Amino acid sequence: MDRLRFVFESSEAELMAKSTDHSSVLQLLPTLVKSAQDLARPPISNYHVGAVGLSSDGRIFLGVNLEFPGLPLHHSVHAEQFLITNLAVHRSPRLLYLAVSSAPCGHCRQFLQELRHASDLQILITSEKQTHKEPIFKPLSSILPNPFGPCDLLDEETPLLLENHNNGLSIIPKTMDSNCGNLCNGVCESLLKNESQLKVSALEAANSSHAPYSGCPSGVSLMDCDGKIYKGCYMESAAYNPSLGPVQAALVAYVAGGGGGYQRIVAAVLVEKEGTKVRQEDTARLLLKMISPKCEFRVFHCYSADNECKKFSF
Amino acid sequence: MDRLRFVFESSEAELMAKSTDHSSVLQLLPTLVKSAQDLARPPISNYHVGAVGLSSDGRIFLGVNLEFPGLPLHHSVHAEQFLITNLAVHRSPRLLYLAVSSAPCGHCRQFLQELRHASDLQILITSEKQTHKEPIFKPLSSILPNPFGPCDLLDEETPLLLENHNNGLSIIPKTMDSNCGNLCNGVCESLLKNESQLKVSALEAANSSHAPYSGCPSGVSLMDCDGKIYKGCYMESAAYNPSLGPVQAALVAYVAGGGGGYQRIVAAVLVEKEGTKVRQEDTARLLLKMISPKCEFRVFHCYSADNECKKFSF
Ligand SMILES: [Zn+2]
Ligand SMILES: [Zn+2]
Repeated sequence: MDRLRFVFESSEAELMAKSTDHSSVLQLLPTLVKSAQDLARPPISNYHVGAVGLSSDGRIFLGVNLEFPGLPLHHSVHAEQFLITNLAVHRSPRLLYLAVSSAPCGHCRQFLQELRHASDLQILITSEKQTHKEPIFKPLSSILPNPFGPCDLLDEETPLLLENHNNGLSIIPKTMDSNCGNLCNGVCESLLKNESQLKVSALEAANSSHAPYSGCPSGVSLMDCDGKIYKGCYMESAAYNPSLGPVQAALVAYVAGGGGGYQRIVAAVLVEKEGTKVRQEDTARLLLKMISPKCEFRVFHCYSADNECKKFSF
Repeated sequence: MDRLRFVFESSEAELMAKSTDHSSVLQLLPTLVKSAQDLARPPISNYHVGAVGLSSDGRIFLGVNLEFPGLPLHHSVHAEQFLITNLAVHRSPRLLYLAVSSAPCGHCRQFLQELRHASDLQILITSEKQTHKEPIFKPLSSILPNPFGPCDLLDEETPLLLENHNNGLSIIPKTMDSNCGNLCNGVCESLLKNESQLKVSALEAANSSHAPYSGCPSGVSLMDCDGKIYKGCYMESAAYNPSLGPVQAALVAYVAGGGGGYQRIVAAVLVEKEGTKVRQEDTARLLLKMISPKCEFRVFHCYSADNECKKFSF
């Protein structure tokens, strides 16, 4: 198994199962957890968590935990969140099975609740003693009974995590963006290399962002020193705090896409609405500055035709 | 019932139960949830959550949710977190019963797991249909089975949330604090009024902070325009992300202590270690600037004799 990969096609998954004498891909999942753990980046806790998921299209996705020294712990990305984001990056429609190295924390159980048919998601915790020969998966509902979740707040038509989103956002032309001078930190004149590409990617991410609770979607694109671009969508949780920030989501794409050290990230763009109830800008800047001090960071404001997220005053 | 109060002495609780024809204080708890909800401050979601707890010393504590527009949602304080912080502020040793207006989210279930004997904490969700005349409380373990928590990471001697902490911290004398000029934003010369009092309070809070996972305790003190001081301890979760920041904890003390609008907060001090793996400073500044733009914010670094939290490099 290529130890640097985070996605395996269904044909590869089946070949791997056969070549390792497992009767099914499902049996293979828990055996990959250890390799996933090795890919984790937890410099604060040194506690390596690995998650391996089987999607409805037969692909296998890996997830690992990420931690960011020098900041509060809420910046951390858990392996289960990484896994879901990895599915989102690769447009996989549904996670069916999940094997994970330790019991999912409440924060992750809540984040997983954001999926359609969440209660049926099948989970196996590899640190638990397995008494059967066949791996035994149990539904999310067995470890998060009586949940608070999307169905408490949204109607049935609202797309959930991993479902198609189109938030109908466009970038506000620079001449109309009142905060531009401020936001660009005075570097408005020195246009970033590849800025337009980064802008398009961040806008795409914002348009796919899952933010039904606040109405404040956002997206981030990152460029590494080779010019490769990675993007991530902000993903909201009905319970607010477990939401995954857009920089975190883009970092998942970066890590899963083979990105190396974070200091290789040289430019970043955030697209979000202006003056809304949820604003990522300052926190995104903090995180980027901490992990890649030389990264150039730009913010572009967007608007939606229906403008469901109104301006607020304090 | 005085609608502005967040703590009731045991004698008051018993009187309230009698005067409202409830056979016990326990029966009274769910009837107070609605009043608690009215005290919530959720300007983003407008979703009012109220929690009412009975502590082992017979006192009743209230908790409500707080939300902060203009920032990411991870700044939010849930009602259950507010309640635990309220107990901590009033040095209550143990929460026995908790009535809450809606099903606790996974983030809160995980935060509650940080308590000693967490699995025995008895919870009643008032939005659920009650089929019995007597209110039926169920243990935390019934809604967070198979938890990840402190016992996965700490030895039995380590104090948990609400237990006595003394982190043995002292403030680094200013002449030795390498970052002082930078941290004080150039206002080192214009000493804050009451600065020494604020500093002592923030240090006390840092000394009571629950940060066994990172070894990076911190505390915040706030002063309102009447000169009244409120303090809050950073409280860490084994699962990292559900940790409650020190400004949030101090804001709980502020709200529970009868503080009004946040713009009445005129000065704030953070005490934390320097150059550690978890740093609250920048995020604390962001939050304070958002809720009270004129608040003067100072940071003091501290050290501990045993110095268990070593410097790190990126
Ligand atoms: Zn987790
Ligand atoms: Zn909650």
